[in-house]
Amino acid sequence: MNDSMATALKSIFPEDQLRFDQESLQTYGRDWTRFYKVDPSAIVFPSTTEQVRDLVLLARKNKWALVPSGGRTGLSGGAVASHREIVVSMERMNRILDFDDFDLTLKVEAGVITEEIQKWAAEKNLFYPVDFAARGSSHIGGNVATNAGGIKVVRYGLTRDWVVGLTVVTGKGEVLKLNQSLIKNASGYDLRHLFVGSEGTLGFITEVELKLAQPPLPMHVMVLATSNLKNLMHIFRQSREQLPITAFEMFSELALQKVLAHHSSLSRPFATSAPYYVLVEFEEKSADTVDKALALFESLLESGHIEDGILSQSPTQAAELWKLREYISESLAPFTPYKNDISVRVSKATDFLSAADEILKKAYPDYEVVWFGHIGDGNLHINILRPKAMAIEEFVKSCRGADDLLYNLIQDYQGSISAEHGVGLTKRSFLSKARSQEEIEILRSIKKIFDPDNIINPGKLFEPN
Amino acid sequence: MNDSMATALKSIFPEDQLRFDQESLQTYGRDWTRFYKVDPSAIVFPSTTEQVRDLVLLARKNKWALVPSGGRTGLSGGAVASHREIVVSMERMNRILDFDDFDLTLKVEAGVITEEIQKWAAEKNLFYPVDFAARGSSHIGGNVATNAGGIKVVRYGLTRDWVVGLTVVTGKGEVLKLNQSLIKNASGYDLRHLFVGSEGTLGFITEVELKLAQPPLPMHVMVLATSNLKNLMHIFRQSREQLPITAFEMFSELALQKVLAHHSSLSRPFATSAPYYVLVEFEEKSADTVDKALALFESLLESGHIEDGILSQSPTQAAELWKLREYISESLAPFTPYKNDISVRVSKATDFLSAADEILKKAYPDYEVVWFGHIGDGNLHINILRPKAMAIEEFVKSCRGADDLLYNLIQDYQGSISAEHGVGLTKRSFLSKARSQEEIEILRSIKKIFDPDNIINPGKLFEPN
Repeated sequence: MNDSMATALKSIFPEDQLRFDQESLQTYGRDWTRFYKVDPSAIVFPSTTEQVRDLVLLARKNKWALVPSGGRTGLSGGAVASHREIVVSMERMNRILDFDDFDLTLKVEAGVITEEIQKWAAEKNLFYPVDFAARGSSHIGGNVATNAGGIKVVRYGLTRDWVVGLTVVTGKGEVLKLNQSLIKNASGYDLRHLFVGSEGTLGFITEVELKLAQPPLPMHVMVLATSNLKNLMHIFRQSREQLPITAFEMFSELALQKVLAHHSSLSRPFATSAPYYVLVEFEEKSADTVDKALALFESLLESGHIEDGILSQSPTQAAELWKLREYISESLAPFTPYKNDISVRVSKATDFLSAADEILKKAYPDYEVVWFGHIGDGNLHINILRPKAMAIEEFVKSCRGADDLLYNLIQDYQGSISAEHGVGLTKRSFLSKARSQEEIEILRSIKKIFDPDNIINPGKLFEPN
Repeated sequence: MNDSMATALKSIFPEDQLRFDQESLQTYGRDWTRFYKVDPSAIVFPSTTEQVRDLVLLARKNKWALVPSGGRTGLSGGAVASHREIVVSMERMNRILDFDDFDLTLKVEAGVITEEIQKWAAEKNLFYPVDFAARGSSHIGGNVATNAGGIKVVRYGLTRDWVVGLTVVTGKGEVLKLNQSLIKNASGYDLRHLFVGSEGTLGFITEVELKLAQPPLPMHVMVLATSNLKNLMHIFRQSREQLPITAFEMFSELALQKVLAHHSSLSRPFATSAPYYVLVEFEEKSADTVDKALALFESLLESGHIEDGILSQSPTQAAELWKLREYISESLAPFTPYKNDISVRVSKATDFLSAADEILKKAYPDYEVVWFGHIGDGNLHINILRPKAMAIEEFVKSCRGADDLLYNLIQDYQGSISAEHGVGLTKRSFLSKARSQEEIEILRSIKKIFDPDNIINPGKLFEPN
């Protein structure tokens, strides 16, 4: 941190919106990844779009790199500052700005926490349906930047589907108001959709306009155990045809064991253990929905597609069953897992999983590999656990070899190297496994339009030139 | 048409995929607009993506301009060839390529007619929900290029919401496979969403992957008459709250009169006439849905928000009621109407309509102005009718003055100059009323990435430099 930078930043930010102390640098300079050096120059906390714009103009003049930072729950290093960047935390931009009770649209600043939006909507008897385990920390701006998906995609889609307007500050310091809550707007290329999933590489998202949904009906949860991966597709098809499903999740026996070991208050959903479990959530659309679920359960048991199962008898029990799935990530955290977050077409999910599991077992017989994911949308999370005795660096290096094997398989399956976590730092060297060289050149050219000096989150998404 | 062009085109296209005769040039050189000179050099009918790519490479070398052409039902001149362009009709690329009965995705060539996709889906007991009057002629590729909306947006969204993959040929002759039917894909900017609504200015869409919906439940239609524009918002809110609506359309008494005059087989839905009518379509979700509709009808009548109304008693009657709305465009065609297709936030739709109507009446007291539209999504169609005695040129010139007034009002309302027809030729000089100068510069830069020689639909969307 040099003096001239400090002086210049103080011309934009009052003292309480600016930090240089080591603790803040280390806290705000990273996300949930643990594999990167954390070394920012300063942390700034803008409270208005104008401050963000002034900062970008200043940074542009001085060729300073800026890293947008939200709730820091990212898993791809998209918000990590390793090269003396200025981290721009959006946490002061946390106001609910406007609600239109006719259009059912909500305008918020980018730093509002996802769960606050969910709660705010619920108070109005409405529903913000994008939901995932990090809801209590993640910012809506970060959700937009990564096109967050989560656990209800099978029913409600991704963040993209709920964004009706954005205010952004580009890397040139332009403030753009994109779409402004129109439902229909055929007036040229939709730049809003470029910013959704851009991982903070085109500019800063400062305000988000969302549409809200009608509240869901009462929910029920079934957890089912199956001995064979191939059964998952049958269970999914039957569930989808016979129930109004809102989530269809999968986790392995090993995942369950890790959750139970980490959370002593939780217990197995039923006595039977099996290699795989699915969690099916559904809405009680009519009086006979629960009967249909029970009939489905019976028929799957009879046909041998499941070994055992449980249907929640109350919202409390449903929430308890959800914990078995939602607590996986945090239960694995002590193992500094090497994470992959991939997607294939839903119809190919279990075939891919079998093939990938075999490859990983052969290449890394000594590592524990935990599988879970949103099987209903083709998204699988693969966590390779670090053996306690192994140093992080050695472990990561060894896992990168696994990436090569895995990503070649993904390419064969025409899948994606990142389903919902983003490319960030962790996957950037594998971008060519998901996008063609022509596409990558186009992406780079688009980046240049919005950020000609490469000052906004440089090195994320793309390998440095 | 010069000999060297003909010779070169023959190197790519066999005789039956190439036309130079005046009748073909005049037929394929335009869309539904009638205000532009039609003057293409040649019409080609590629049957593969490779032929399209070869054509683009040839055109690039020779700096020939290409105009993508679908079902030619566009209303903004997006597919008009006025400057000796080569028109590229996609009508031979009309194959259904692939259906995945697990993912419920359908891959088709760009020239497949919208209604064929609807019928194909229905045969599989599925549903392609994007629907509008031109369904029998429009191509799916054109639907994607304009992000077609239509009559079910309030329930099912726009074309964008159903596109899960695209194959495109850029203006550089690159073939890109975008997204390939993945539900979740966080691997860099989503170029698919740039092509949706690009109006054929970035390249050719040659293949489209769509997801299909579950079939709708039985439908019912109510037509209601109201004396006051302001009542529309109340009727919409009540309908939305009390019924599972799938469409909420509006038309004026003048629109109804034009339809009845043009279609002698149709009759008024009921004896009462009123300045405005709404058409509400809803699904029979439960046994009491129709009772709820009748209760809503009674309560609106009692509160004075409607004057009269009718509820369909059969699918046949529902289809007849729909004709009153869907036949408007073709009933107005003999008047060579000057069309506007604008959108504002739903909550502002009737305020905007009142203000716009007043402005138009003051400025053009002698013109008949017909209003109709998808009030449930903020999209209004304004048709100014040409007096029989007036020449087309004079009429158009005079209407452009009206555009100025109207578009200033749209700008005040933060609406869009085009909701679903696109910008094409007709609205390009007003693009700055919907997008900022900074945005327009970005759009132009994006165009340059995909089409550096400006050979793909030049002059559409943007004014020539």
